[in-house]
Amino acid sequence: MTAPAYRRLSVEERRGQLITTALGLFAHRAPEDVSLDDVAAAAGVSRPLVYRYFPGGKQQLYEAALGSAADELRQCFAEPQTGPLGHRLSRALDRYLSFVDGHDAGFAALLRGGSVAETSRTDAIVDGVRRAAAEQVLLHLRVTHDPEPGPRLRMMVRTWIAAVEAASLIWLDEGKRPPVAELRDWLVDHFLALLAATAASDPRTAEVARAALALERPDGPVGRLARGIAPVVKDALRLL
Amino acid sequence: MTAPAYRRLSVEERRGQLITTALGLFAHRAPEDVSLDDVAAAAGVSRPLVYRYFPGGKQQLYEAALGSAADELRQCFAEPQTGPLGHRLSRALDRYLSFVDGHDAGFAALLRGGSVAETSRTDAIVDGVRRAAAEQVLLHLRVTHDPEPGPRLRMMVRTWIAAVEAASLIWLDEGKRPPVAELRDWLVDHFLALLAATAASDPRTAEVARAALALERPDGPVGRLARGIAPVVKDALRLL
Repeated sequence: MTAPAYRRLSVEERRGQLITTALGLFAHRAPEDVSLDDVAAAAGVSRPLVYRYFPGGKQQLYEAALGSAADELRQCFAEPQTGPLGHRLSRALDRYLSFVDGHDAGFAALLRGGSVAETSRTDAIVDGVRRAAAEQVLLHLRVTHDPEPGPRLRMMVRTWIAAVEAASLIWLDEGKRPPVAELRDWLVDHFLALLAATAASDPRTAEVARAALALERPDGPVGRLARGIAPVVKDALRLL
Repeated sequence: MTAPAYRRLSVEERRGQLITTALGLFAHRAPEDVSLDDVAAAAGVSRPLVYRYFPGGKQQLYEAALGSAADELRQCFAEPQTGPLGHRLSRALDRYLSFVDGHDAGFAALLRGGSVAETSRTDAIVDGVRRAAAEQVLLHLRVTHDPEPGPRLRMMVRTWIAAVEAASLIWLDEGKRPPVAELRDWLVDHFLALLAATAASDPRTAEVARAALALERPDGPVGRLARGIAPVVKDALRLL
């Protein structure tokens, strides 16, 4: 006598399985195009069983799936604090863009706004990811002994995180062009250029930028950008 | 015998007055904190009169006010195509940031998402403003005879528009610090740095950047940025 497969899972395992299944569906469709029945069918369980775990129905399941995606996204920006900054950013962006690629329609539906599943709770989850990503990047920039990064550096990093998100949405709009490696390199270049431009008018950022630059090597992202940018900006020398 | 004041307005004038009044209220409060009665009282008319013009009630009034704000925002980026690019951007940002300053709470409530008044229609209005702003900026960059700016330049401009929006929200969060002129200069620097960084890996953008640079003068935004950035990036020369 064999019990149905779902009896073999513990409460926590079953909950985890339902969330993973839901995330798999919400990743590639707008929330309004996924029903509770779809999740039950994909998980191979009954609709009442899903309701037993998620009495709030689809919205609760959506928010749980989003919470799980948020954990994964926060992990993207966790990176050992060793080696040149350009490489660290590059690796973090590889993970982030791979997440975007793997959750394309859901990512776009969530961040484009206007979704029926969007609430102040889902907005808080998304905002939490943005803040966590900014904190991670600031950690990598905390090369001085300052207890607190300056307000301009903080604004710069938060603005860049928003730019990464916007560029990811545009990239999805454009049928995932350019190739993801080009997008990643461009977003690293964007960060480095923005760091230099912010350093130009903010002495605290200048200190951080100098310390970060000292760790870079000619074969790294900063060297690549410096060689690419030199012919363009040499015309600006007359403006000095 | 004097007729009540509101009889003296034509239908179009009355409609315009109600929209302007509503926008004045929605500018400084979240949509959920403005009632139809507030709008009627502020306009000095009766609730039924507001309903005669806006049978859809508060939501319809909100969307009409948003449409009017969107027209105003689109105008911010309209700028004669003469003189150095840095100055043009500076003036457009002055108008944009002055709009943000004058509609602070409403701007934040709308763009932060999760508002009850947010629908696919309001999202389409907001997205329309972003696209119009990007088109205006691209017009200023259309210095070559190319019929169409390259995809990288287009992505760059759209990303920068998103960064401007994000920076505006952070600026509101931070109690409108730094002073608005500093924020404006930093956003111009952000654009110029991003243009140079994009030019580093995209020949079509490089052509546009060179042509734009040729119009700049030492006392303009590019000259200011070049002088500020030179001491920071000179350490990068060893990476060339």
